[in-house]
Amino acid sequence: MKLAANPFTRAIREKKKQIGLWISLSSNFAAEVVASSGYDWVLVDIEHSPNDFFSVLGQLQVFAATKTTAIVRPDWNDPVQVKRLLDLGAPGLLFPMIQTVEEAEKAVASTRYPPRAIRGVSGGTRATKFGRVTDYVDRVEDETTVILQLETAAAVGRAEEIAAVDGVSGIFFGPADIAADLGKVGKPMDPEVWGIIKPAAKKLIEMGVPVGTLVLDPKFAAELLNDGFTFVACGVDTSLLANAADDLLAQVQGELS
Amino acid sequence: MKLAANPFTRAIREKKKQIGLWISLSSNFAAEVVASSGYDWVLVDIEHSPNDFFSVLGQLQVFAATKTTAIVRPDWNDPVQVKRLLDLGAPGLLFPMIQTVEEAEKAVASTRYPPRAIRGVSGGTRATKFGRVTDYVDRVEDETTVILQLETAAAVGRAEEIAAVDGVSGIFFGPADIAADLGKVGKPMDPEVWGIIKPAAKKLIEMGVPVGTLVLDPKFAAELLNDGFTFVACGVDTSLLANAADDLLAQVQGELS
Amino acid sequence: MKLAANPFTRAIREKKKQIGLWISLSSNFAAEVVASSGYDWVLVDIEHSPNDFFSVLGQLQVFAATKTTAIVRPDWNDPVQVKRLLDLGAPGLLFPMIQTVEEAEKAVASTRYPPRAIRGVSGGTRATKFGRVTDYVDRVEDETTVILQLETAAAVGRAEEIAAVDGVSGIFFGPADIAADLGKVGKPMDPEVWGIIKPAAKKLIEMGVPVGTLVLDPKFAAELLNDGFTFVACGVDTSLLANAADDLLAQVQGELS
Amino acid sequence: MKLAANPFTRAIREKKKQIGLWISLSSNFAAEVVASSGYDWVLVDIEHSPNDFFSVLGQLQVFAATKTTAIVRPDWNDPVQVKRLLDLGAPGLLFPMIQTVEEAEKAVASTRYPPRAIRGVSGGTRATKFGRVTDYVDRVEDETTVILQLETAAAVGRAEEIAAVDGVSGIFFGPADIAADLGKVGKPMDPEVWGIIKPAAKKLIEMGVPVGTLVLDPKFAAELLNDGFTFVACGVDTSLLANAADDLLAQVQGELS
Amino acid sequence: MKLAANPFTRAIREKKKQIGLWISLSSNFAAEVVASSGYDWVLVDIEHSPNDFFSVLGQLQVFAATKTTAIVRPDWNDPVQVKRLLDLGAPGLLFPMIQTVEEAEKAVASTRYPPRAIRGVSGGTRATKFGRVTDYVDRVEDETTVILQLETAAAVGRAEEIAAVDGVSGIFFGPADIAADLGKVGKPMDPEVWGIIKPAAKKLIEMGVPVGTLVLDPKFAAELLNDGFTFVACGVDTSLLANAADDLLAQVQGELS
Amino acid sequence: MKLAANPFTRAIREKKKQIGLWISLSSNFAAEVVASSGYDWVLVDIEHSPNDFFSVLGQLQVFAATKTTAIVRPDWNDPVQVKRLLDLGAPGLLFPMIQTVEEAEKAVASTRYPPRAIRGVSGGTRATKFGRVTDYVDRVEDETTVILQLETAAAVGRAEEIAAVDGVSGIFFGPADIAADLGKVGKPMDPEVWGIIKPAAKKLIEMGVPVGTLVLDPKFAAELLNDGFTFVACGVDTSLLANAADDLLAQVQGELS
Ligand SMILES: [Mg+2]
Ligand SMILES: [Mg+2]
Ligand SMILES: [Mg+2]
Ligand SMILES: [Mg+2]
Ligand SMILES: [Mg+2]
Ligand SMILES: [Mg+2]
Repeated sequence: MKLAANPFTRAIREKKKQIGLWISLSSNFAAEVVASSGYDWVLVDIEHSPNDFFSVLGQLQVFAATKTTAIVRPDWNDPVQVKRLLDLGAPGLLFPMIQTVEEAEKAVASTRYPPRAIRGVSGGTRATKFGRVTDYVDRVEDETTVILQLETAAAVGRAEEIAAVDGVSGIFFGPADIAADLGKVGKPMDPEVWGIIKPAAKKLIEMGVPVGTLVLDPKFAAELLNDGFTFVACGVDTSLLANAADDLLAQVQGELS
Repeated sequence: MKLAANPFTRAIREKKKQIGLWISLSSNFAAEVVASSGYDWVLVDIEHSPNDFFSVLGQLQVFAATKTTAIVRPDWNDPVQVKRLLDLGAPGLLFPMIQTVEEAEKAVASTRYPPRAIRGVSGGTRATKFGRVTDYVDRVEDETTVILQLETAAAVGRAEEIAAVDGVSGIFFGPADIAADLGKVGKPMDPEVWGIIKPAAKKLIEMGVPVGTLVLDPKFAAELLNDGFTFVACGVDTSLLANAADDLLAQVQGELS
Repeated sequence: MKLAANPFTRAIREKKKQIGLWISLSSNFAAEVVASSGYDWVLVDIEHSPNDFFSVLGQLQVFAATKTTAIVRPDWNDPVQVKRLLDLGAPGLLFPMIQTVEEAEKAVASTRYPPRAIRGVSGGTRATKFGRVTDYVDRVEDETTVILQLETAAAVGRAEEIAAVDGVSGIFFGPADIAADLGKVGKPMDPEVWGIIKPAAKKLIEMGVPVGTLVLDPKFAAELLNDGFTFVACGVDTSLLANAADDLLAQVQGELS
Repeated sequence: MKLAANPFTRAIREKKKQIGLWISLSSNFAAEVVASSGYDWVLVDIEHSPNDFFSVLGQLQVFAATKTTAIVRPDWNDPVQVKRLLDLGAPGLLFPMIQTVEEAEKAVASTRYPPRAIRGVSGGTRATKFGRVTDYVDRVEDETTVILQLETAAAVGRAEEIAAVDGVSGIFFGPADIAADLGKVGKPMDPEVWGIIKPAAKKLIEMGVPVGTLVLDPKFAAELLNDGFTFVACGVDTSLLANAADDLLAQVQGELS
Repeated sequence: MKLAANPFTRAIREKKKQIGLWISLSSNFAAEVVASSGYDWVLVDIEHSPNDFFSVLGQLQVFAATKTTAIVRPDWNDPVQVKRLLDLGAPGLLFPMIQTVEEAEKAVASTRYPPRAIRGVSGGTRATKFGRVTDYVDRVEDETTVILQLETAAAVGRAEEIAAVDGVSGIFFGPADIAADLGKVGKPMDPEVWGIIKPAAKKLIEMGVPVGTLVLDPKFAAELLNDGFTFVACGVDTSLLANAADDLLAQVQGELS
Repeated sequence: MKLAANPFTRAIREKKKQIGLWISLSSNFAAEVVASSGYDWVLVDIEHSPNDFFSVLGQLQVFAATKTTAIVRPDWNDPVQVKRLLDLGAPGLLFPMIQTVEEAEKAVASTRYPPRAIRGVSGGTRATKFGRVTDYVDRVEDETTVILQLETAAAVGRAEEIAAVDGVSGIFFGPADIAADLGKVGKPMDPEVWGIIKPAAKKLIEMGVPVGTLVLDPKFAAELLNDGFTFVACGVDTSLLANAADDLLAQVQGELS
């Protein structure tokens, strides 16, 4: 049995536009509700949700039946957690809050085996289909998506060096935290935020680095993709549900006599 | 400690319009996403979902902190399941597929204690706050909402007799199953369906019986409420999420160059 | 590997006093908190709790490490549920709401294999330690405790016939439901309740039938045991916890200046 | 979006040999361990396991990513449970303990919509990919595998009539229960058991009815398939694990000096 | 929608006596058993229990329906865990094992947003009712209770400096660990333990710092509150249940003839 | 109540051969399938599995009813996680990736109370049977198995010093990670790997240190035990199940005509 190809890793390498969705509902059932939408990728978030390894496992199983690639965000740049997520067969990882080249190198190292790096070894995991995947150690590093998230002005200032770290698949800009860092917590759409993200992204795109982000306005998401961003998430499941429920109630209330 | 009043039971008794939402995601986390919308009532569905007693419990706990009344639908007119749902503190029940007066009486009986009826007794349940509610046996029957669901043409034809059964709080028309019964499975909005629901509902409304249903079009939901329906659910959480995710993707795709 | 002996079945056969505890918290962790107390038996209740097969399994595993026998109460005299509980290795069962000889026979039949009776066969269950217990089919009927619960005046009136059904290990009187049946719902200690339980119990004891019940007053529990009852539960975990928490708060409040 | 084809339903219709595995570990993680083996079908068992709707859901999600068809066995011929399993997207069902033509008709009816039959309607379930499958009501009956399990000598005696019920996809012989019915509980390989199964199977095969069973000896499984049985399960996950663990320990112990 | 006020934060600011209970049973069902007792606060403990984010979520949902404030104890002074607990809507936190001013500052920083501090930003969490709370970033720091736990003699010796760190709501003395530090593990009531806690507490009280602890003797709990402690927990749910079960059994055994 | 003796700690102290099994299925039900095999010890693995505290708890409860000692492997040498595992009553711990004497000392320290070391104190945990074990603090350090895992050539080079750290019960060699460290990831049976493990093990054995490892070949496992290794695991539950399922299918396929 061969390791399954990761279509998202290939797509962003080839700069094909990839539309994504944030998944925070932390349930394999709720994940399947959006799994049929046909997004190119989803972000199964641990950082700001109650998710644990069992719930992530259930969600990975859901997306394994689709063409959507599930990228998992650990709650920190934590090699122990990354080891376990890779063993669970996570096709890719989004590392939060990478601030320096050293942190970038640590992130990549947690996804590579010794002697070059530090990932712990287990042969009998879901990632290897419990020992059946014969080319796993040869191909896993090439298939696994490693995306680093820049979330402060200082990190954005080091975007080029960080992107140049060997093994990085792409760079993600985190508007909510960059806004906070600029003293504008709660205002991720503030022009100042995008005033630092856009030029940094432009340089990376020119360097050939796949660049991504999360925004909640579909027009703006498309605009960024049209402008050279490669992977852009355009919504969050919890917000979609909350807004849909609120809007529906308002619609009915608005029609009552 | 006194038994909490059930605002929904009182509201429908007084014919105040009550807007509802169907909850099928079967998760206390997902339930809380819609719990803040402020619907008058929700239907926590067991019949067409993976819900079990633990997941229903978690959702009842969520709605206990809101002004929204959680009505639970068992998967059948099953006194054993009803006994357990009442012990868990379900404020009300929607009984599926009531076809006859006898079935209606059985439904009500499962919510009343002996010697008049058949509900099993336990003093130390969540419903009694584990023994602390001192007026429970005196007031629970009056507070608990008992709604019967008519889902075939034959049942609709017996709506008045069924509604007249002592202890029935309201009558719910199930368009999806009525459509199937009429040979139009999958077409709950077919005129023939509403051609039998509307006159039956009208008669009940004239009799003073609170009447409800589930429709997915907010305008139609409001129209029914304006026409005398008392409790109308206007959406389902899974559909809201599925549609919102699909629509968002289509919007972004539509803007791509 | 041999089937483990069930000490409770033997003890009640020999009329050794067995003190019990009701377990409704529906958690393997909470069960272990009381498992070390050293009760002779516990009743893992499904009827008035959110328990399911997984949670019952976890609790059976807890008590398997102790000398306490876990008796499980299904939510009804339901052979399908009983089949699954026996497959999970439940050492004994308490059948609720047995009203007639026929119902008693149905209860026993659900615990016996064909051709005499109706229990479905599976060789690879927890009950057989996944196929390792070689004498299972020979000994399980003798080891399994089958207790029938009488919960109405009519049922109590048939106590002797019901107790005489072959395969019945003991008879349990349910004061809460008997009280309801007598029009005294919520008053299980009403003299009228015990006015019918006590003479019926006396006759059974004289016949050599092990008799049990649940009461919440330890003095009364002991009195019943001293008077010939064989297995008496004297408390419920939820009530113990609720009362202890309430009392503790009251004590502190009472000392505040 | 179209309803996914069920390869198993087609394969048995065309009498292609289908090798199966029984799944009782009741865990989406354990299911995935065997999901990569490549069996044609698995039986996710509820009848003799702790499985519930959530655990079945997780297992259905696992097999949705494979070419293996997951057939679910409810714990009884229970239309309410069947309705919920079909809503969860179970590709097929194995109905236990079918004794008569009437029970066979009831089983089939629970999988067909009104007005012909009794399946309750919900448009927003996993089965329809939450409303996205547009041809669901047209094709689901044709895709869903409906297998009936004969488990007594009497039922086997009525095999031809039962198999002739419209909507039956195949007939399954249950050796363990037939053995019990013959007074040989625990001896499913007794010649008397196969002395009644084989001729009955032969007649059905001649009639063109797909026939299946579960045996634990791989040679015998192959022999049955070679003799015209269409779908034969040859093992149970719990037994495979128990035996492998026992054998391994014995091997090491046998080598100790 | 506005952020809910945290009554406990306000109460301890105003030095109103607050009686608490430790919750270790790690279950939303067990939590509800004590939730109706009416304690001013509870401590949902992660440090010495199996709790995870899902179980803490369920318990937070329970207490959201009561007047009791749920304070959560992470298993360490871990900003990543704290970020996730705040996103789940924990009204307050008890930080274990704070030894220095630097650790105190780190604890507070994990609860404050950049640019002043380090809390990661997410707009769509339970804490903000999934985006609905409009004043969240403005008010959350003022509402959130930040209590630091001193658990060694050295830490107690630095109580005043630690309490003076900006953002600290109160100081908690941990007798069990202080006892261990003094070489008296298992003896939290040793006079030497209280010989260092009491004078340190007195100074803090004089400085106006709210002071708290956990003791298991209700008289002593009240005495501390009367002496100026503001928030004192007087019991642990597991111990209440264990003791109640043990005592009950002993009572019945003591009455047996 | 006294602390239960840990037979495995005693057995390895006395150099009695102990055969083990790796448990990664992360389920209390699956654990019980192998619990009856009668291994001397099992390793409940957190490092390369989805296990969490609840699932570990369930598995510890299973093995508490057997003679098999459950050793738990945390996902890292993490004193916070170790504190919680010990509170859950883990009889022993296997610490991954110990590289230096300092790391070995840190591992041991996380299992010992102050003032000598750093384990946090809680009196009411499962480990103490919720306060009932009276000799816990006196005996727990002597009963708890502390095994350190050497997983790089450098660590193996320091085996003697690491083994000499006070409180270490035994040394475990991790072939999979040692292989990776030697540039042979995926080849744990490479002669070079055993070329460094065997001499290091020999020296430790001569020093009187109990030595263990995990190999998947039962003959080799026995050989190591015969050569002086004290505790050797010879299989992994996931691999046993995967291989058994694969082999069975191949056997049936091989017999098809
Ligand atoms: Mg390792
Ligand atoms: Mg009863
Ligand atoms: Mg059967
Ligand atoms: Mg319906
Ligand atoms: Mg961030
Ligand atoms: Mg502490």
